[in-house]
Amino acid sequence: MYTELRALLSPNELPSDTAPFLLDQRKRYTSTDCLVVQPNSVQSVQKIVRFCAARDITITPQGGNTGLVGGSVAQGGVLLNLSKLNRIRHVNLADNTITVDAGCILHNVQAAAAEANRFFPLSLASEGSCQIGGNIACNAGGLNVLRYGTMRDLVVGLEVVLPNGELLSHLNPLHKNTTAYELKHLFIGSEGTLGIITGATLKLFAPPQSTETAWVGINSIQSAVQLLSLVKNQFAERLCSFELVSQFALNLSAQHSHIVPSVQAAWHVLIELTDSLARDDLGDLLADFLYTNGYENSVLAQSEQERQDLWTLRENISASQRALGASIKHDIAMPIVAVADFVEQCGAELIQHYPDMDIVVFGHLGDGSLHYNTFLPNVLSNDVYQHEDTINQIVYRHTLQQNGTIAAEHGIGSLKRHWLPSVRSPAEIALMKAIKAQLDPQQLFNPHKLLPD
Amino acid sequence: MYTELRALLSPNELPSDTAPFLLDQRKRYTSTDCLVVQPNSVQSVQKIVRFCAARDITITPQGGNTGLVGGSVAQGGVLLNLSKLNRIRHVNLADNTITVDAGCILHNVQAAAAEANRFFPLSLASEGSCQIGGNIACNAGGLNVLRYGTMRDLVVGLEVVLPNGELLSHLNPLHKNTTAYELKHLFIGSEGTLGIITGATLKLFAPPQSTETAWVGINSIQSAVQLLSLVKNQFAERLCSFELVSQFALNLSAQHSHIVPSVQAAWHVLIELTDSLARDDLGDLLADFLYTNGYENSVLAQSEQERQDLWTLRENISASQRALGASIKHDIAMPIVAVADFVEQCGAELIQHYPDMDIVVFGHLGDGSLHYNTFLPNVLSNDVYQHEDTINQIVYRHTLQQNGTIAAEHGIGSLKRHWLPSVRSPAEIALMKAIKAQLDPQQLFNPHKLLPD
Repeated sequence: MYTELRALLSPNELPSDTAPFLLDQRKRYTSTDCLVVQPNSVQSVQKIVRFCAARDITITPQGGNTGLVGGSVAQGGVLLNLSKLNRIRHVNLADNTITVDAGCILHNVQAAAAEANRFFPLSLASEGSCQIGGNIACNAGGLNVLRYGTMRDLVVGLEVVLPNGELLSHLNPLHKNTTAYELKHLFIGSEGTLGIITGATLKLFAPPQSTETAWVGINSIQSAVQLLSLVKNQFAERLCSFELVSQFALNLSAQHSHIVPSVQAAWHVLIELTDSLARDDLGDLLADFLYTNGYENSVLAQSEQERQDLWTLRENISASQRALGASIKHDIAMPIVAVADFVEQCGAELIQHYPDMDIVVFGHLGDGSLHYNTFLPNVLSNDVYQHEDTINQIVYRHTLQQNGTIAAEHGIGSLKRHWLPSVRSPAEIALMKAIKAQLDPQQLFNPHKLLPD
Repeated sequence: MYTELRALLSPNELPSDTAPFLLDQRKRYTSTDCLVVQPNSVQSVQKIVRFCAARDITITPQGGNTGLVGGSVAQGGVLLNLSKLNRIRHVNLADNTITVDAGCILHNVQAAAAEANRFFPLSLASEGSCQIGGNIACNAGGLNVLRYGTMRDLVVGLEVVLPNGELLSHLNPLHKNTTAYELKHLFIGSEGTLGIITGATLKLFAPPQSTETAWVGINSIQSAVQLLSLVKNQFAERLCSFELVSQFALNLSAQHSHIVPSVQAAWHVLIELTDSLARDDLGDLLADFLYTNGYENSVLAQSEQERQDLWTLRENISASQRALGASIKHDIAMPIVAVADFVEQCGAELIQHYPDMDIVVFGHLGDGSLHYNTFLPNVLSNDVYQHEDTINQIVYRHTLQQNGTIAAEHGIGSLKRHWLPSVRSPAEIALMKAIKAQLDPQQLFNPHKLLPD
């Protein structure tokens, strides 16, 4: 059967080395018994989908394979990697939009925008290898959400191949369009279960002309929340990033990065302001603001190098924590007012169960979103996952108590599908299943992901 | 049967004067044979819905009854007016959100935000009587979309009564939440066909500290589009409004408003910049910008009174055009690059058919959205609608040729449902009907609206 499909494709649509596509980013999931294809045109995607639909073959779409929840792992069927759909289609300056193939690497979209003297704001750790289609399918977040929103907010229009091979194309830059149910938002965040995104029209912005970055040491999360409220009211949309880092996380990252942090404190906040007009006094305003409000244990980056160092400390947390071994990670969000209570109460209960546990807490406090990663230094890496259920039960119970969500910006994938009923009602899941059944009655697209059985 | 329902409700939930709820804003549609109810609690809404579901009685939800497409008109069944659900529930300063009942009048939400030293940006002509629930159900647009988005972009969470009486409540301020299909966006813009919105959590912003308003005369729409591109790249998110007005529309409004316009030209643009930081030089920057780029036929408001006058000229266009008699109105949007061609080509074809036609063109050029209203001065008002199909055929054909949409910010309602297939594919409409069938299998909520039969 695969022979027949291979025969339909050009040789360059069948990669010889399939290893990079089979193992997931966290090395927890491996694709098995599947044919890896890399269609080089939208028509080829449609051809493959039609072929599979006629023969009941499942299709698992895959972008840059940088997901953290096992969302692009195939058991059998076709693993359809989008990397060859990588054209920047065009930039429209009047409408401030860029239209791209889904397989464009995020960094290349940022670069194409910059070349047109515009700014595409989505920014996250894997931007050098993740792809726009995957960013859309997972509703990616990252570092600039506070100012520009998540990927969902940046999508003007989509081009999608449906499970029957039909192409749905809405790539025109319509800034207003209220014509019955907004289906675009179903595909965004659907993790490839409803359609394969092949292209998108995205919003562009004027490039920032001034940037100011501060690192602030504080003694509690309550104090960070207070600072957030003050800075948001003072600087409004200029506030681009407001990142929380625990002292433990900072120390790990500092060691890994060979950078000595200038500030010591129980908790840390990285603040970045940007302005689309050149503004010489923004740094002074920020310094005055911090001083006046009593946040004196802080430094402002005085050069681009100093700014890079502050960001390196923040961005290397993920890499540096690998030294602690395997971890049970949580990508959670909650109302900002609830974060301090959550960290205190959840941490206390975890330590009660696991007195030697290391907890790495950092994340996008400005969005109420936390990376909450737990390590068991005295448990062998291979055995850590035996504790996953117990730890998740505790962390998610506290998250839900604070009216939070179990998936902020990494999605549901394979890892969390059995948790979906904790945040979505039976009526909602029934509706989701009806939507899935309407678009994909054969259940061929990204099987065993997202929705519980 | 209605006797039984009346008995379930308190006396103050049954208005004695029902006339204001029965005739629509444009006086084109009248509700008939229906019971008007005004539930005073979410529980009461659920009770009514459950009563109706058990007896196959249709329910037409209604907010401020300011819609322009006959979306809240009932033929039989229950007309459920939300006006009594009018509490501001609470303001959350850390998360920058406000939670309100759906029946709150838009102006009251703006005022509650201002009282908390925050800004709620949705602003439109009927803000003194339209309601938040209706704004959400229709994805309202208005004057500040360029900077803050449409209503869809302002909704953090919704509380909705489903057609079976079940309550779906997601009012927590989650700024990031990627847990399978985003159903919130189905209810936004669904015009009451999927659920009755009873409450919402909305985004707040820092109040603008500086405002600068300019009126610019130009000789062509091309020139306006060029100006838009320049001003967007220069002032970025500070650009709050960019309104296009034809000379004919301006003259009508000037006469109606008793204000003498300072600028004469074929076309006019109203530009408003706002800044969340006090900035003394914003007016100078705007004046320099206009001068440097050759847009010298312009005035900057030098006082709040002058600013009000400029806005009055813009906002009174709708009221002033009533002097021309009944009209066939179009609420369309298209890529901004296409607006000039549309106005030229569509106007030419209309004038060929109707040499005496008056065309009032104005709208939110910054969003590619136009109010395109046609008048036949030599046809009696009552007979104008006989030409509706012919005129719509021409206008919508040109709109679609420019990859535009037939409904930008007023919705589909009764008026445009037969046009929906021109902008949504059979696969999309089939999916919408499946969604409707799943949530409302008895087809009880807002029947004969939105989706074609």
